Amino acid sequence: MEINDLKIPKSDITLSKKVKIFDTTLRDGEQAPGIALTTDEKIQIAQKLDNLGINTIEYGFPAVSEGERKSAKLINDLGLNANICGLARVLKNDIDALLDCDLSYMHTFIGTSPLHRDFKLKMSKEEIVDKASSAIEYAKDHGITVEFSAEDSTRTELDYLIDVYKAVEDAGADLINVPDTVGVLVPTTSRKLISNLKNELSLPISVHFHNDFGLAVANSLVAIESGAEQAHVTVNGIGERGGNASLEELVVTLKVAYGLDLDIDTTQLYNLSDFVSRVTGIKMPPNKPIVGENAFAHESGIHVHGVLENAATYEPIAPELVGHTRKIALGKHTGANALKAKLAEYDIKMDEEQFCTVYDQVKGLGDKGKSITDADLKAIAITVLGKAKEEAVKLIGLSVSSGSGKTVSPTATVKLMINGKEKETSSIGVGPVDAALNAIQTLVKGTTNIQLEEYHIEAITGGTDALAEVFVITSDEENNKATGRATREDVIMASVDAVLNSINKILMIKEAK
Amino acid sequence: MEINDLKIPKSDITLSKKVKIFDTTLRDGEQAPGIALTTDEKIQIAQKLDNLGINTIEYGFPAVSEGERKSAKLINDLGLNANICGLARVLKNDIDALLDCDLSYMHTFIGTSPLHRDFKLKMSKEEIVDKASSAIEYAKDHGITVEFSAEDSTRTELDYLIDVYKAVEDAGADLINVPDTVGVLVPTTSRKLISNLKNELSLPISVHFHNDFGLAVANSLVAIESGAEQAHVTVNGIGERGGNASLEELVVTLKVAYGLDLDIDTTQLYNLSDFVSRVTGIKMPPNKPIVGENAFAHESGIHVHGVLENAATYEPIAPELVGHTRKIALGKHTGANALKAKLAEYDIKMDEEQFCTVYDQVKGLGDKGKSITDADLKAIAITVLGKAKEEAVKLIGLSVSSGSGKTVSPTATVKLMINGKEKETSSIGVGPVDAALNAIQTLVKGTTNIQLEEYHIEAITGGTDALAEVFVITSDEENNKATGRATREDVIMASVDAVLNSINKILMIKEAK
Repeated sequence: MEINDLKIPKSDITLSKKVKIFDTTLRDGEQAPGIALTTDEKIQIAQKLDNLGINTIEYGFPAVSEGERKSAKLINDLGLNANICGLARVLKNDIDALLDCDLSYMHTFIGTSPLHRDFKLKMSKEEIVDKASSAIEYAKDHGITVEFSAEDSTRTELDYLIDVYKAVEDAGADLINVPDTVGVLVPTTSRKLISNLKNELSLPISVHFHNDFGLAVANSLVAIESGAEQAHVTVNGIGERGGNASLEELVVTLKVAYGLDLDIDTTQLYNLSDFVSRVTGIKMPPNKPIVGENAFAHESGIHVHGVLENAATYEPIAPELVGHTRKIALGKHTGANALKAKLAEYDIKMDEEQFCTVYDQVKGLGDKGKSITDADLKAIAITVLGKAKEEAVKLIGLSVSSGSGKTVSPTATVKLMINGKEKETSSIGVGPVDAALNAIQTLVKGTTNIQLEEYHIEAITGGTDALAEVFVITSDEENNKATGRATREDVIMASVDAVLNSINKILMIKEAK
Repeated sequence: MEINDLKIPKSDITLSKKVKIFDTTLRDGEQAPGIALTTDEKIQIAQKLDNLGINTIEYGFPAVSEGERKSAKLINDLGLNANICGLARVLKNDIDALLDCDLSYMHTFIGTSPLHRDFKLKMSKEEIVDKASSAIEYAKDHGITVEFSAEDSTRTELDYLIDVYKAVEDAGADLINVPDTVGVLVPTTSRKLISNLKNELSLPISVHFHNDFGLAVANSLVAIESGAEQAHVTVNGIGERGGNASLEELVVTLKVAYGLDLDIDTTQLYNLSDFVSRVTGIKMPPNKPIVGENAFAHESGIHVHGVLENAATYEPIAPELVGHTRKIALGKHTGANALKAKLAEYDIKMDEEQFCTVYDQVKGLGDKGKSITDADLKAIAITVLGKAKEEAVKLIGLSVSSGSGKTVSPTATVKLMINGKEKETSSIGVGPVDAALNAIQTLVKGTTNIQLEEYHIEAITGGTDALAEVFVITSDEENNKATGRATREDVIMASVDAVLNSINKILMIKEAK
């Protein structure tokens, strides 16, 4: 083994010539509690999966509803390169529903484990084999490609599991799928199971592994080493309970560690993950491998020092490989090297004493758990360099009124001190916050042309008297962008404070230029 | 292999007699960008880890700051059963900082890979061995237990790596730690590396695996199978980039799939995960294995049907094993069986036609991606059964005023129609929303005593004219709890609508009793 080489030498493992990726984000992913995708969202995801180079897309379960059948037809009509697959139980009705949508690829299943036989199906071993075989024969008579899953295969007696798969081979199935329905495999058992099946069966083997113990990707990799030709995945690993094998983790590992060419454009992975996250509402944590916001972020002094010399010291792959970007974060663990690099990037020069003051302030904010943006750093630097003027814009007074009446709009009156001169105006808006910010925008127009880029209320759960934290980003005509943040019991006051905070930073950066 | 048994027969693998768990949530976990824990939070996490039964707790990096040294002393003085470990570079100063805090367990490291030697350290192979050896000798002279890491060991030439580890064995180290610093191992290379090292070295081997490809837990399991005696983990797998091996996933898999007794109280895992999530601000997605909100949730018809017959059909372990709970979720994929079970649970009886109407409404809300709470289901059922009266509380008018003045508080005047009678009052509050809700509470007091249990604003990022979605839960004196939700451009109006929505549900459930 070449430890000093990320790639596993091909001689070490049995790799099938061509590994296919079967994506089930739209079926098994969407089945997760709380997820419901519109047909339009399903179409957009299918197109993105096809652009990526996925071989088969499981779009849903036609028998479930008229809506599912309608989206099947629409997706089928897109003329994608990928196969479009529908799920079906081993029932004539389910297969007919698939035929109704003109789908030519079916994923069909029946439970085979003692638990599924005795408690769910209440059927004998023989009945299950018979039902599966006749359904497959019926589908094959109609010219459909059939992928068959023995549900809960990993808790099925091995002898019986082989009997079932041999029977479906005889019935004409095209692919054998091995679902680890409740995610109980570990790499060692995955290797044994797939090697055993590979010895006994002649059809290509596919795996559909769940992630209840966090091992779905690892088990799929080992299955592929043991001869599996296809793996089922979902974007971000979403799915019921602990989810499914994650598309991005599996594909990148196969490419980087196994040196396998899957004809997949990995540079689209970050955008795909982000899109699926937004439409499903399932946010990934910052430490999600490959696509998380911190996947290529570095904050601690030792790591940033290494990365500045050579990014590979603390990165397994370049972020560009997956369409992501590197981030040097500022915070509690920031070292002097990182901070110096950032200041140099903005062409800010200072002596050692001034640098120490900036460094202490950054560490101080970091110690409080605050993240520090580049604009924050600039504003701190300008202040330390003595280049900061007094705050250009100050709030003198604010009054808002709002109500349920349909006749007049929420109204705000704002009085500001701008560069020493008092200015006052009133504005209407769709709500009192909008009205107040419209008034501020009008008042500062003579000084700078402010656009609100981002506005985010983070109210702390607990009650209406909890503190509301408002976070904004504003920009000016030169595309200076600054953040503003304020925490107040009154959401309107917090919004006004945050916006003024951000405007003052922009004016400070402009002055210093 | 017994496929039908979750446990790997002991004869199949080389398992060390006693696997130790080394937790580095407070060091490697806290090092992630954006995380900063207070000393008090560190103490609470250390106590929880100790209650769980963790063997060693790495609390931080004493050389970094006076604050780190202060928390080391405080944690050391708690008198926990676990070893308290501090991180140190192979530098006399770093070791002295550890001694200053009276720590008796040190985790020390130096990079050994070509990348680290050439770009970060700019040191020769020999210099690195010498530095490591003298540091270990110095520490051993002071009676410290030493665990040594060859940083980036998995990208180090194997021959040189063995030389380094043999030298530190000679220098008196107590444990050899193998860090996969950038997470490039896969199960197959993990097995080979650890087996190789096991053959060459005599000290116990520990592994510290990163999760850049999502394989940290799997690689640690395989390392333990290959003879490693200890694994480094973090709660929720938090850490730099893709994070570290997750404590809960590793411990549960070792217990369930390997049948290993680690003397760890797994029933505390859910609470520990939740606590760490709250103090770090790093939220886990619903599909996080073991501890995610959906880890034991079931929504799709086929799954719920199985779970109602026997939960094991779609669960690898009982949720109680990790202190979690099972959840039957209602949504788009809800089947008739699940809904009937829920209605039976609340003792709500209806005929088949009424049931179909309730079922359609639940599916309709689910299709829009809304999650449906138990109170929503009750309110739908009551309406369908014809037991619902007209809405008891209606908004007639609302007027709020607020401003920056320090002399008077934000004020709201609310007029409601309660059971056909108009009532009006005004209230003050810390903000306009608080004032409006105080007024509503006063007005409905004659009818029911409403407490606001939860209040949450979810403003859609984009601008102040974006829709604000307000979510509330209110309760009455009989502890009926109902949710309310409203989406409006004006956050005050959305808050008032959401609260009235929720109050009306409570009154409806009360009426129907």
